Amino acid sequence: MTLSPTLPPLSPTPRTTVGRGRNRMVEDRAELHRLLADALIAHLGVTVARDGVSHPLVLPAAYAVDLDGPDLDGTLYLHGSVAAGWLRTATDSTVCVTVTELDGLVAARSAFHHSMNYRSAVVIGAARLVDDEDERRRALDLIVDHMIPGRSATLRASTRKELAATAVLAVSLHEASMKSRGEGPVDDAEDIEAGVWGGVIPVRRTAGDPVPSDDASGPVPADVVRRAASL
Amino acid sequence: MTLSPTLPPLSPTPRTTVGRGRNRMVEDRAELHRLLADALIAHLGVTVARDGVSHPLVLPAAYAVDLDGPDLDGTLYLHGSVAAGWLRTATDSTVCVTVTELDGLVAARSAFHHSMNYRSAVVIGAARLVDDEDERRRALDLIVDHMIPGRSATLRASTRKELAATAVLAVSLHEASMKSRGEGPVDDAEDIEAGVWGGVIPVRRTAGDPVPSDDASGPVPADVVRRAASL
Repeated sequence: MTLSPTLPPLSPTPRTTVGRGRNRMVEDRAELHRLLADALIAHLGVTVARDGVSHPLVLPAAYAVDLDGPDLDGTLYLHGSVAAGWLRTATDSTVCVTVTELDGLVAARSAFHHSMNYRSAVVIGAARLVDDEDERRRALDLIVDHMIPGRSATLRASTRKELAATAVLAVSLHEASMKSRGEGPVDDAEDIEAGVWGGVIPVRRTAGDPVPSDDASGPVPADVVRRAASL
Repeated sequence: MTLSPTLPPLSPTPRTTVGRGRNRMVEDRAELHRLLADALIAHLGVTVARDGVSHPLVLPAAYAVDLDGPDLDGTLYLHGSVAAGWLRTATDSTVCVTVTELDGLVAARSAFHHSMNYRSAVVIGAARLVDDEDERRRALDLIVDHMIPGRSATLRASTRKELAATAVLAVSLHEASMKSRGEGPVDDAEDIEAGVWGGVIPVRRTAGDPVPSDDASGPVPADVVRRAASL
């Protein structure tokens, strides 16, 4: 992963410029790359039209990021069955991909100042259906390796039939913004003086021991052990 | 929370009927209630129009659910600053609120069958701006208590000024669907016979010890201790 201080800044367009809470805005693109490397699920927003009425639809999806491809801003990949309705809806339309990690619950001295610590990125862009078989193969390996780093190299290659059944969408990371909160409660002086307790409950994701399938044989492979230890 | 076997089933309309992966569809509304009680963050999807071009926007938000209000299907509440653009965009328009919990990484014997275990709910409906001060007060208490059960009763009442600065959106849980996956990999027989390892890395959310603010005094309150132990 490229984490260079020479990366272009985030929020390059009006629709990815943070409105409220500019003090929470992150400008360093390297922070975006770190969040996208840490998180496991994205929420994809598309606009669905049905009987002449349109509405937003938000679905969770596995994803991966390629920072070494032809798009210098980086590419975010999502995949699904070629039969999935949301993939057809998203193709060639503008989509929003949001990735959020919850880091803590902020217990303030008043209901008003309760908050959460989090990191969240919003990516807006045209969704490109990946036609090229090599790029699709590479994207699928990246998605597997995002879940369990190193795993794709331990598996047989995807078959042509499998590749034909899988649709991959690509969204440029060009138009992206990020917000983050990572501090204690910001309270009114009177409430602090009143002696109410304030602080943060840290929240994180952890893994349990890998559970082999009933029909699995042999030891748990090193990549799975490493992933379970690093979540 | 009402978890009755007489609840109406999920997916009552075409736009909340699960398309692909019907085997993952959850029909029991009590399962939706359990997921909404477990999760802490929702992703709100709205349609934004700018310069005549519209696109979806997905933002993370704290939320709470009221199953004892006048809407027998239940009401989902989101809140934000009255100055937040997304709140103005969402008001009186159709929004999508999606809540997802990741439960595991499914390491299959092929890239194609890699998957995740999860629970995810999609709620679609008109977003109503809550005008009534009593309902707004109750919704804000529910949002605080969703983060830290019992906390709102330990805090002073919100002031009129605080209530005036906070916008609350309500969405009915009437149009909701849910999907869930909670099993090991489903692999091709040849790949199992080839002896590749398959299984699941369980994923869960955990809390660290509460971190008091520098200016906090006294012991960590019981509600915060309980929440940190139950996450």
